[in-house]
Order: sequence, then structure tokens, then C-alpha cells
Amino acid sequence: MHYRAVETTDEYVARLETGADWRAEIESLADAVDADAAWFTALGAVQDAELWFYDQDACEYEPIEFDEPLEVASCVGNVSLLEGDRFAHTHVVLSGPDGNAVAGHLNEATVWAGEVHMRVFEEPLERDHDETTDLDLWL
Amino acid sequence: MHYRAVETTDEYVARLETGADWRAEIESLADAVDADAAWFTALGAVQDAELWFYDQDACEYEPIEFDEPLEVASCVGNVSLLEGDRFAHTHVVLSGPDGNAVAGHLNEATVWAGEVHMRVFEEPLERDHDETTDLDLWL
Amino acid sequence: MHYRAVETTDEYVARLETGADWRAEIESLADAVDADAAWFTALGAVQDAELWFYDQDACEYEPIEFDEPLEVASCVGNVSLLEGDRFAHTHVVLSGPDGNAVAGHLNEATVWAGEVHMRVFEEPLERDHDETTDLDLWL
Repeated sequence: MHYRAVETTDEYVARLETGADWRAEIESLADAVDADAAWFTALGAVQDAELWFYDQDACEYEPIEFDEPLEVASCVGNVSLLEGDRFAHTHVVLSGPDGNAVAGHLNEATVWAGEVHMRVFEEPLERDHDETTDLDLWL
Repeated sequence: MHYRAVETTDEYVARLETGADWRAEIESLADAVDADAAWFTALGAVQDAELWFYDQDACEYEPIEFDEPLEVASCVGNVSLLEGDRFAHTHVVLSGPDGNAVAGHLNEATVWAGEVHMRVFEEPLERDHDETTDLDLWL
Repeated sequence: MHYRAVETTDEYVARLETGADWRAEIESLADAVDADAAWFTALGAVQDAELWFYDQDACEYEPIEFDEPLEVASCVGNVSLLEGDRFAHTHVVLSGPDGNAVAGHLNEATVWAGEVHMRVFEEPLERDHDETTDLDLWL
């Protein structure tokens, strides 16, 4: 286990724009407040979504597409630098009209409404390639 | 994307009362500590639950009722003012004995046990009617 | 509803070790930073998992086992003292290759990758037996 004490420099709430991309909006917030490291949680609803499932044998992401309105019952993630760009690593739990839940790594989704809380850390988090998992990890 | 820097004035942990309503308990906590804006996450279990799914075409909430014990695997939300009253906008992920998950906007649920973390912000968040979504949104 | 104002003494981000146990890793972080009370959220993926569902009639946990790779779409929990030991009460939402979600109280799971944010509180939280639910609760 690798860990780091963090200093929070500032803290934000945000409302995501209807029609925009959920993850891009969070990255825009990070850009707007100059956050090279941050932690966020969020809730809301989307008009569609593309989740990615990581195949741990093939070490590849497989997309799962949903072309219908879904609640965002949970969203947890963090901002870090990936090859020099701010990247919002975003996991979500989504649900449909019968309440049934689907979940995973969020690649993209069209915002219906979104409410975000973000804490910004002083020291950047930088992702590097990890041999074991073939993922880009920080620390 | 609309955002605001927030100043946290205080921070709480709470245990929700068995038999009480999950969301009302969170609003009682907000009342007790005079929070007109706050962010919370929580976990626990409930004895039943009513979720609401927002129909993005009809712009109406549709209720989904569960009359059985469920784990609260995740709960994310915030406190704001809605027509002058404190309102805990609360999204949850619930699960049954086979682990299957249902999720969405929580209207009400009878607490079995609940553990909450809440951060209280200095400046109130106020909800106003949003034309595009027909929802009450802040910022 | 029982609540307590908390003072955060320090805040951490951590990366869980591939192959280790998810909950034990969080407890190791708590040990490493001397946390007798903390709140955390996390995301990642696991290679397998054992969830527990609490039967509210029998007042017993029932295990649910998953022997396949799953995303950790959400993880919310807290650290407290249980019979003198640090215990990470951990709820998760997991998902498979079709996105379908399972969720509940996490007993154990083998980490594939895990990213954690933890806030450490000054005053310890201690769990005691609660008559009504037959659970060990704090406050």
C-alpha cells in the first residue's frame, strides 16, 4: 500500500451543464481551478452513458453502451495528470426506471443534471504505467 | 458548468436512528447544526425504501417501492434550501440478499442502521427552478 | 439521531496493492497513520469478493461470494475501534462485464487496483453492541 498525506488548498461545489459530457465537465472544473490533483463525489442523471469494464486477463477496457436516461446514483473519482493532461478517473453507479443498477468506469455520458463536490490537493498526482495491471496508476 | 468555492465551517459524523426516516434524519442533522449547505456520504441498511426515477421526457418523478430489508451500499448527497426549507438531495445504491443492486434518488426509507459524514459550508445553497430540466437546481 | 462534531487532523490518498485484501489494505493505512477514526471513499477493481448481507430478522450476516473480476464502482466507509482493533466498515458497489451491479457490506476482496481518499479524525470512534439491531455501532 502506497500513500501520501495531502494538503487541501480549496474546495468546490459545481453544477454540470445539461447536454455536456459528464467527465469533460469535471475536467473543465479541474482546469478552471487549476487542479492537478483532486478528489470528488457527485450525483445526478445522464441521458446516455458509455461504461468501460477492464478485462483483467486481456488487460484491455471493453465498452458497454447505454442509450437511455439513467440516474447517477453514485460517482466517485479523482483528478490527476495523465501524460501531462488533467484526467478525471470516474466511477459511477447508474440506474433505470425499474431501479436496476449498472456500474463501472465512466468514459462518457451526456449530462441531464449533475452536482459535484471537489477537494483540490496542493501536490500534483501523476499517473504512470504499472507493469502488473497494465493500467496508469499514481503513487 | 457553474461552480463556487466553498468554506467548510464544520464537519460531523452521525448515526441515524433505527426506525426513523433516512432522509428526514439527515435533514434533522442539518437542522441541529444549522446547515443551509452541506455535502454528505453515508452507508448502512434500511427496512424498506421508495426510490424516485426522473422521466426526462415527461419531466416527472416516478416512484419505485421496495418493501424489504436492503443494504445501503452507497449514499451521496447534499443539503440546500428549497423554498426556504432544508432539503437533503439524496442518491443511494441499495442491495438485497443475493447482492443485486437497485439505485436512484431516495425519497424515503426506514433506517435499520446508518452512518453519515457531513461537511457544512458557510454560504447557503439555494435551489431554483431550471427551465431545461424542470428540476430545482442550485448555482 | 446521534452526532458528533469531528476535527480532521490529516488527509491521505492511497493506492492499494495488487493481490492484497481490499479491507485489510485500508486497515493497514489506518494503522500506518494511527487513525482510530476516519472516513473514506474509494474506487478501483477486484479479482474476487465476498459481500455480507445482514438478515434483519435473524440478526446475522449471510455471505455472498463472487469468484470473478469486478469493478469497484463505489466504496464508502469508516474506520473505528471494534474490541480494541481498528476496523474498516466498508460498503461497496461492484460490477461485471455487462455492467450489472452487485453491492453490500464488503468482508474481503482481492485488490486488482484501488484508489482511496481518507480523512482522519482526532477523537476515536468506538463500536459497542446495539441491542435493537444486534450490530456494533458507534455514537
